[in-house]
Amino acid sequence: MSVRLIFLGTSAGLPTVKRGLSCIVLKYRGDLLIFDCGEGAQRSMMIAGIGFPKNLKIFITHMHGDHVLGLPGLLQTLSLMDRKYDVYVYGPKGIVDFIMKVKELLQFQISYGLHINEVNSGIVVEEKDYVVRAAEAMHFQQSYAYSFEEKPKPGKFHPDKALALGVPKGPLWKMLQEGKCVLNMFGEPVFPHQVMDPPKDGIKIVFSGDTRPCESVLNLSMNADVLIHDSTFDDSLVDKAISDMHSTASEAAEIALKANVKLLVLTHISARYSSSTEALLNQAREKFGNVIVAEDFLELLISKNDVSLRRLIDPMK
Amino acid sequence: MSVRLIFLGTSAGLPTVKRGLSCIVLKYRGDLLIFDCGEGAQRSMMIAGIGFPKNLKIFITHMHGDHVLGLPGLLQTLSLMDRKYDVYVYGPKGIVDFIMKVKELLQFQISYGLHINEVNSGIVVEEKDYVVRAAEAMHFQQSYAYSFEEKPKPGKFHPDKALALGVPKGPLWKMLQEGKCVLNMFGEPVFPHQVMDPPKDGIKIVFSGDTRPCESVLNLSMNADVLIHDSTFDDSLVDKAISDMHSTASEAAEIALKANVKLLVLTHISARYSSSTEALLNQAREKFGNVIVAEDFLELLISKNDVSLRRLIDPMK
Repeated sequence: MSVRLIFLGTSAGLPTVKRGLSCIVLKYRGDLLIFDCGEGAQRSMMIAGIGFPKNLKIFITHMHGDHVLGLPGLLQTLSLMDRKYDVYVYGPKGIVDFIMKVKELLQFQISYGLHINEVNSGIVVEEKDYVVRAAEAMHFQQSYAYSFEEKPKPGKFHPDKALALGVPKGPLWKMLQEGKCVLNMFGEPVFPHQVMDPPKDGIKIVFSGDTRPCESVLNLSMNADVLIHDSTFDDSLVDKAISDMHSTASEAAEIALKANVKLLVLTHISARYSSSTEALLNQAREKFGNVIVAEDFLELLISKNDVSLRRLIDPMK
Repeated sequence: MSVRLIFLGTSAGLPTVKRGLSCIVLKYRGDLLIFDCGEGAQRSMMIAGIGFPKNLKIFITHMHGDHVLGLPGLLQTLSLMDRKYDVYVYGPKGIVDFIMKVKELLQFQISYGLHINEVNSGIVVEEKDYVVRAAEAMHFQQSYAYSFEEKPKPGKFHPDKALALGVPKGPLWKMLQEGKCVLNMFGEPVFPHQVMDPPKDGIKIVFSGDTRPCESVLNLSMNADVLIHDSTFDDSLVDKAISDMHSTASEAAEIALKANVKLLVLTHISARYSSSTEALLNQAREKFGNVIVAEDFLELLISKNDVSLRRLIDPMK
């Protein structure tokens, strides 16, 4: 299965004409996963034609306005649409208080089950085909990076090998395909790896959120297909990156290199690069070749062997 | 002086692809007045090229999410821009609590003096050249309509009349122009109306906010140049308008007619009219001829004798 990743807000701190506040959505097998929900996210979802399916999960990296001020409006809009399916929100300490207080202050009703979870490091969601894992990032407050990890797929089963090893067609084949050891017609054990190709890794995508370069995000990113990393500043502003707890373009590239990721996407772009992001791209590219700068309404179609890019709307117009 | 009025959010409840959440800005002599601040307002201001001048006032009609959820982000962005000039916010009961709680929950700093005022009916702002007046609207909560009223301008002074009445050029002319009675060279009183045309009415613009048609908004709207009125539904949904405390198109038109306004602008348009607002326009027009339906990025240039329209960006593209 492939993953659709759509960048809806790629700006840092304040929006610009071309970049909205932080929001990335991930579509996988009918599920919608939203990573951060800056102001304006709900409308960008409508413009991008992203519907609100039965399975809807929202992950907040940290409780700064530019990452979370679109959440109350989205929750309210889902209610105005008379949604009945549950909605799950995951975030750091403070997320429950924020949503409940704003809901109370603005007196809005929720038409669906709303489940808000304050997360810890580790697996925060486990579904049949994927997990979402959180790791502490290095920012001002409690702040999380998240990974979406498709579960490994069993390798191809070879009937000829099974027959040659004395395992007849039938329930024993199913057991082997499920990873179990069976006994053949001679009473000898036959192991799955003898009749199947090795399991295929699933797709892995990592969102750093706002962060200084750090071990925990590096570890979370190991061998990811796509790493979306904070790249608020170019290298000439490394001191500002340190004081503001963000990363520079080449710091993001170093993490991508060490983590052996396939593609690095720079995001959370400071408004000072409104006219050009070339400096960011060039500085990153010196350390890590396969890098792009995120844009609003850029879509990545990610399979295990390939990533294709498409612009849903040209934000440069 | 003319007034620039720019519609930035003309949708009701939830945004659509073409309409953002409630926000209208008014520019007058370098002052910026913002009426309602729905989610996304700050970015629409950037897209429309509206800067943030020294004199900045924000008026909130009521504490529903679609009218106020863009306010925390705007206040935060002004701070990120390192604004030093004071910002004044006016709104109903609850506005102080909302801003202070969100500021605390999201831990953002404010770089400028922030003055938040819970208003009552009557004049809420008086400046040299204009006042802003509030009147209670009829909605679920405490809800206000606001009028912007340019102060009357003195009529044209006629030097020939002053000379003929025995008032020589000099300080006495200034006193007459300031509305004071003077004594002429024969010791007789000369009154301003003898040497000046009658005062010219200033421009008056009224924003109803969300409301059922009501006396207080009608009174506030008397002889306005422009009335911007809730027109969430067309007449076939009058029952829904009553239960949701909104107005239909022809109800808005009746208020415009009774108040003797020059131009009616229908706004707060339900998402159900995304493909066409013809029904709203036609129903209103049957009762009141000079009516338009608001659109995002529509600008009105309003002088006492004329209103011209311009689309800053074509939202239908």
